[in-house]
Amino acid sequence: MYLKERIVAGETLLGAGIFCPNAEMIDWCAQGMDWIWLEAQHTHADWMTLAHCVHAAHAINVPTLARTWTHDLGTIERLLDTGAEGIIVPLVDTAEQAERIVSRCFYPPVGTRSFGSLQTERIEPSTDEWNKRIVTVVQIETPEAVENAEAIAKVPGVDVLNIGVRDLALRQNIPWVVDSEYSTLGDQIKHVVAAGRKAGKAACVIAQTPKSLAHAVKEGYQLICAGMDADHLYDAYQGMRKSLEKIENIRQKQERS
Amino acid sequence: MYLKERIVAGETLLGAGIFCPNAEMIDWCAQGMDWIWLEAQHTHADWMTLAHCVHAAHAINVPTLARTWTHDLGTIERLLDTGAEGIIVPLVDTAEQAERIVSRCFYPPVGTRSFGSLQTERIEPSTDEWNKRIVTVVQIETPEAVENAEAIAKVPGVDVLNIGVRDLALRQNIPWVVDSEYSTLGDQIKHVVAAGRKAGKAACVIAQTPKSLAHAVKEGYQLICAGMDADHLYDAYQGMRKSLEKIENIRQKQERS
Amino acid sequence: MYLKERIVAGETLLGAGIFCPNAEMIDWCAQGMDWIWLEAQHTHADWMTLAHCVHAAHAINVPTLARTWTHDLGTIERLLDTGAEGIIVPLVDTAEQAERIVSRCFYPPVGTRSFGSLQTERIEPSTDEWNKRIVTVVQIETPEAVENAEAIAKVPGVDVLNIGVRDLALRQNIPWVVDSEYSTLGDQIKHVVAAGRKAGKAACVIAQTPKSLAHAVKEGYQLICAGMDADHLYDAYQGMRKSLEKIENIRQKQERS
Amino acid sequence: MYLKERIVAGETLLGAGIFCPNAEMIDWCAQGMDWIWLEAQHTHADWMTLAHCVHAAHAINVPTLARTWTHDLGTIERLLDTGAEGIIVPLVDTAEQAERIVSRCFYPPVGTRSFGSLQTERIEPSTDEWNKRIVTVVQIETPEAVENAEAIAKVPGVDVLNIGVRDLALRQNIPWVVDSEYSTLGDQIKHVVAAGRKAGKAACVIAQTPKSLAHAVKEGYQLICAGMDADHLYDAYQGMRKSLEKIENIRQKQERS
Amino acid sequence: MYLKERIVAGETLLGAGIFCPNAEMIDWCAQGMDWIWLEAQHTHADWMTLAHCVHAAHAINVPTLARTWTHDLGTIERLLDTGAEGIIVPLVDTAEQAERIVSRCFYPPVGTRSFGSLQTERIEPSTDEWNKRIVTVVQIETPEAVENAEAIAKVPGVDVLNIGVRDLALRQNIPWVVDSEYSTLGDQIKHVVAAGRKAGKAACVIAQTPKSLAHAVKEGYQLICAGMDADHLYDAYQGMRKSLEKIENIRQKQERS
Amino acid sequence: MYLKERIVAGETLLGAGIFCPNAEMIDWCAQGMDWIWLEAQHTHADWMTLAHCVHAAHAINVPTLARTWTHDLGTIERLLDTGAEGIIVPLVDTAEQAERIVSRCFYPPVGTRSFGSLQTERIEPSTDEWNKRIVTVVQIETPEAVENAEAIAKVPGVDVLNIGVRDLALRQNIPWVVDSEYSTLGDQIKHVVAAGRKAGKAACVIAQTPKSLAHAVKEGYQLICAGMDADHLYDAYQGMRKSLEKIENIRQKQERS
Repeated sequence: MYLKERIVAGETLLGAGIFCPNAEMIDWCAQGMDWIWLEAQHTHADWMTLAHCVHAAHAINVPTLARTWTHDLGTIERLLDTGAEGIIVPLVDTAEQAERIVSRCFYPPVGTRSFGSLQTERIEPSTDEWNKRIVTVVQIETPEAVENAEAIAKVPGVDVLNIGVRDLALRQNIPWVVDSEYSTLGDQIKHVVAAGRKAGKAACVIAQTPKSLAHAVKEGYQLICAGMDADHLYDAYQGMRKSLEKIENIRQKQERS
Repeated sequence: MYLKERIVAGETLLGAGIFCPNAEMIDWCAQGMDWIWLEAQHTHADWMTLAHCVHAAHAINVPTLARTWTHDLGTIERLLDTGAEGIIVPLVDTAEQAERIVSRCFYPPVGTRSFGSLQTERIEPSTDEWNKRIVTVVQIETPEAVENAEAIAKVPGVDVLNIGVRDLALRQNIPWVVDSEYSTLGDQIKHVVAAGRKAGKAACVIAQTPKSLAHAVKEGYQLICAGMDADHLYDAYQGMRKSLEKIENIRQKQERS
Repeated sequence: MYLKERIVAGETLLGAGIFCPNAEMIDWCAQGMDWIWLEAQHTHADWMTLAHCVHAAHAINVPTLARTWTHDLGTIERLLDTGAEGIIVPLVDTAEQAERIVSRCFYPPVGTRSFGSLQTERIEPSTDEWNKRIVTVVQIETPEAVENAEAIAKVPGVDVLNIGVRDLALRQNIPWVVDSEYSTLGDQIKHVVAAGRKAGKAACVIAQTPKSLAHAVKEGYQLICAGMDADHLYDAYQGMRKSLEKIENIRQKQERS
Repeated sequence: MYLKERIVAGETLLGAGIFCPNAEMIDWCAQGMDWIWLEAQHTHADWMTLAHCVHAAHAINVPTLARTWTHDLGTIERLLDTGAEGIIVPLVDTAEQAERIVSRCFYPPVGTRSFGSLQTERIEPSTDEWNKRIVTVVQIETPEAVENAEAIAKVPGVDVLNIGVRDLALRQNIPWVVDSEYSTLGDQIKHVVAAGRKAGKAACVIAQTPKSLAHAVKEGYQLICAGMDADHLYDAYQGMRKSLEKIENIRQKQERS
Repeated sequence: MYLKERIVAGETLLGAGIFCPNAEMIDWCAQGMDWIWLEAQHTHADWMTLAHCVHAAHAINVPTLARTWTHDLGTIERLLDTGAEGIIVPLVDTAEQAERIVSRCFYPPVGTRSFGSLQTERIEPSTDEWNKRIVTVVQIETPEAVENAEAIAKVPGVDVLNIGVRDLALRQNIPWVVDSEYSTLGDQIKHVVAAGRKAGKAACVIAQTPKSLAHAVKEGYQLICAGMDADHLYDAYQGMRKSLEKIENIRQKQERS
Repeated sequence: MYLKERIVAGETLLGAGIFCPNAEMIDWCAQGMDWIWLEAQHTHADWMTLAHCVHAAHAINVPTLARTWTHDLGTIERLLDTGAEGIIVPLVDTAEQAERIVSRCFYPPVGTRSFGSLQTERIEPSTDEWNKRIVTVVQIETPEAVENAEAIAKVPGVDVLNIGVRDLALRQNIPWVVDSEYSTLGDQIKHVVAAGRKAGKAACVIAQTPKSLAHAVKEGYQLICAGMDADHLYDAYQGMRKSLEKIENIRQKQERS
């Protein structure tokens, strides 16, 4: 069952957020996840590294959605040509932008994607089948996009709306702290999720903590990125630091007494 | 105060275990750590990637110890020439091996290291000063090495003994599970730590969990690698999976009731 | 004599189709070819790899045409700045697109290309001379482009029309099999080749097999890519498999008899 | 004090021109410089190499301005996400282009840059602070741009005008030799510098030789790139060649006499 | 069934000879092959490229044997840690060398390989199972090695003898042309194959052409590398050249008549 | 005429010292030099980067000598397999070491090098011809090596002795400053050069400045590396800084008066 079909079936799908693309890490740490968020917007992984990460994800049967750093159609197509299962597109503000981009993600007769990647052909030679697989996620992260959410959601080929809470807050000069988005951006978020639901489209969000995750599930998000790798690592090491401090404090107390 | 001086001063020093070398990850996730374990034995990072990781670690003022994949002296020197603060050498079984390797890690008159790396020269032009900084960690991970632990520990220039518990168990056909090493390999570990202490050398270990950490501190380990990145990520994502399952179980129960 | 001059002179020019860019392969396998098709649209070679491939091609005196993955002008210029002899541009549908792109491929006063690449300057310091060398190939691969073929062909600076038969078939939902294009797309292909001829421009095509090659020569194609490396390799290994099967069948028969 | 503040304060700021990006070279050779020109337009450094160069520049506390090869906004943002202190944009011909590009270089509420790079966040978590740091340099290198210089200079967020003398000459079919630009392009250059000054914006230029440098200072340029690495190296090796020839000539004369 | 088990079962196993390692090529062109010869001795693929190629080979379920460029044990172990199914070792002249190298290819209790690669652990966590999989191929390519062939073949853990015909000829100053080896080196080759058979070990050879293949099968080689990619490509392009020449000759004759 | 033949003919040969390997820099800055010192000991260039640099050097017809970081024979062979014209080997202390290493640099019947690199075969298919080309440079940089200089020089296949003045001084605790080596190490240097001359072998040295160059020529060095790129760049930028300071001082004086 393709990721896309699972989305349509209403499943809640947990992804691994890979902001430090490394093919030798992905196939270990993303085992058993429903999908991978392969970050290429705010990181600087080279093309072959991205391609290898998609390869490594195939090795563990986890589909990859690559976040593009640009709206340039050829670049988006090249990202998909790694064999990725879909694309995450930042800063989609209008239905027109969404239409233009989404069209390039599907092969004719649905869209205008060019055929020729060895990777996609090996994985699945039928272009019709690929059209049933490719997942497109557009990011709603400006006030303009929130306003246009209904129109964007209606664009055929758009599968998922992802709310970029941090940018959305920044655009409105709203201070942002982890897990605070539901209070400060609550109405906007509800509006976007509702717009998606009305058009039969899913919603996506990043949830770094179990608390965020619980909230996201409750709000009906289906595609949930279970946090960014770099943040998880930071937390893990800082957690160990605190454990050590505790141990040393206890020892010092014992020594003093 | 150099890492080496902190070891001599008896501090417990917590490191980040980087098995997926990526310069854009290190300077985020290893902030505030005492040192970095840069894995090059069991991973396949290229030379420039390793060099860049050491650069990135300097950007956050955290010293790096690189684990070499070979005893080849020129390769060990090239790893140090990245500007690393020291080396971790696997499979050191005899004092002779330790002497041969350690000699190449220090500049004359202490050892036989060749001068010429721009990185080490920029960071610190004085070779005498580098000789006060370089930390050498030799891994005791075979029965032969355990037997030779006292002789190895006495080798001048050897700073730290790292007990490779997993390989040590494997060599003796002892089943291994995380956190089990203190029971199954207890006597051998105590013997090595004692051999080090007698020679005024510190002990090093990997502790993936707070429980392991507490044990390691109690046993007197000073250089403690606070777990491997790939394992922490696996745990983080699996933890989120379990959170999601719990949430869905609760929801299902609520729906049924 | 530049590749461009040979095109104008009416020569049939055979190219090597490099879809797996690797500088150590190119200078071996493309020896003696007239040109190289360096694929960057449907593959993921990094920038330096592409640059090195052009270097390696210079080492055997074979000019390189790089296929771009985007219409972004700066990216096309950066591809040319490797020292490539020209560019292959996918999905050119209108004369306006062709004009905009082609202008950036030539130095002033002919076009708007920016000066500054060390590679192009070393190979040939005169910008006028480069303007006599650069070959532009635009791909006609949509029904719209076929319709506009005459106008596109007339654009000054457009040297060659390449018919993307596979995409052209896909756009029209026509099933595609190797060597079938002349029957199913016959009229469209003839129209495009004729449009080119009328404007004094050459035609380009990929011919994977001697049969395709014979057809292409007969139809008057001048720039013929003699197949893709990955396909040739697949064929070579599969050919050896079949040889082995034959040998084993004979042996089995002999053993049975 | 940020580079941007030093520009506003009227300082003359000397940069190292890195056309051969290599992180192990930058932190040695650019020590003590005011800024680095990291060339990505006319070279082919890969993404991670560029990111590492910015890392290496941070290690010696020298801010980096990256020259982009494209006007694509997502690509420019990705270049800034390395932690670069600013961007150099070629071929800016109109105020509209300048506005569109410059907007993406600053975080809201000033501009439309997206938040999310680990590098920029680690270096400085405050987006307001980044808005005080980012330097934008637009290149005036066509007759059209010279004409529009006043309008371009007035665009809020444009910090510096860089005159691309070589392209500007080429566009007008004016022969170009090093150090000749002040005579042949004199009036145009004066016009652009004056336009900048009127709008309170600085001027930037490349000066390969002390003579060029003296002229640039006299003309009031503030951001001066002290030549390109590749040219300096060429000059250094050729200088040594000439020294050798002299030595050999003297020796031959001595031998003959 | 592991490759190793198929060797023991007496199968003839055809491999793809990858001398231009590129992960995007392997998973296309090596489909359906029994194994891959991943060349690292005479090529310069970087570590991550080699690791990715093994990943890509797993994606098509074809096991990889990597040819090492060195006898350095740590380097051989690092090559195996990519998840490769085995190693090809050049220039093994004595049984002692074979023992030393082969020991490092198997985990304890069989050998001395160190545990810790994420790739090997993910593919198969049981070290005992890996010991049933790893294939070691030693190259007999000097007169000394031919003499020692029996002793080398008897070394436990040595699975296959590969006769390096080109080097063997060169060492003896025997001129070498493709497919000539059986005449000029006939007795030596027979001696080595027989030595292997006596010890129950298979023989390996490179066969570039069907003729070579037929000979190799007849001689009882089990591991047959079906030629090198670079040579196949050279042949394919040269074949197309000759086709074109023929076509043009016919045309010229027709024109003349 | 090969570099090796020019050495034998007694020419003084000036090389470019590339410590920041980048193929796009080499073919620009090393134009017209007699040879290139491609540094791999104290830098961290990856394998493909080194291979590409040799390619780029071929593009300008300048032979490359690669400095290895190790005595490992397979690694030295792999460096030569890039198509390099020879090798520079650090830390050769005895004639035995020299013999062992040098043997692997030449093809049989002269030495034991293995045949198989596509690069070397393309450049020159005759192994005998390669044996006439390969240049071996061994570094004399320890007191032990100075003592053994005569024996090392006599080893057949050793072509050049390079005196590593900096390491030699460091080993003897002699303070080292640029251009000082002739006074402090004078006798040792003379001894080594004389030992070489006696055996008909040339001497090599790095000369960063014209003064050093003049001295080197006078002393009879034939292979002279005309300084390291990183140092030349540092000098160039610092020179420009001083020029700027002078200009600003003059201006300040003028303003005051």
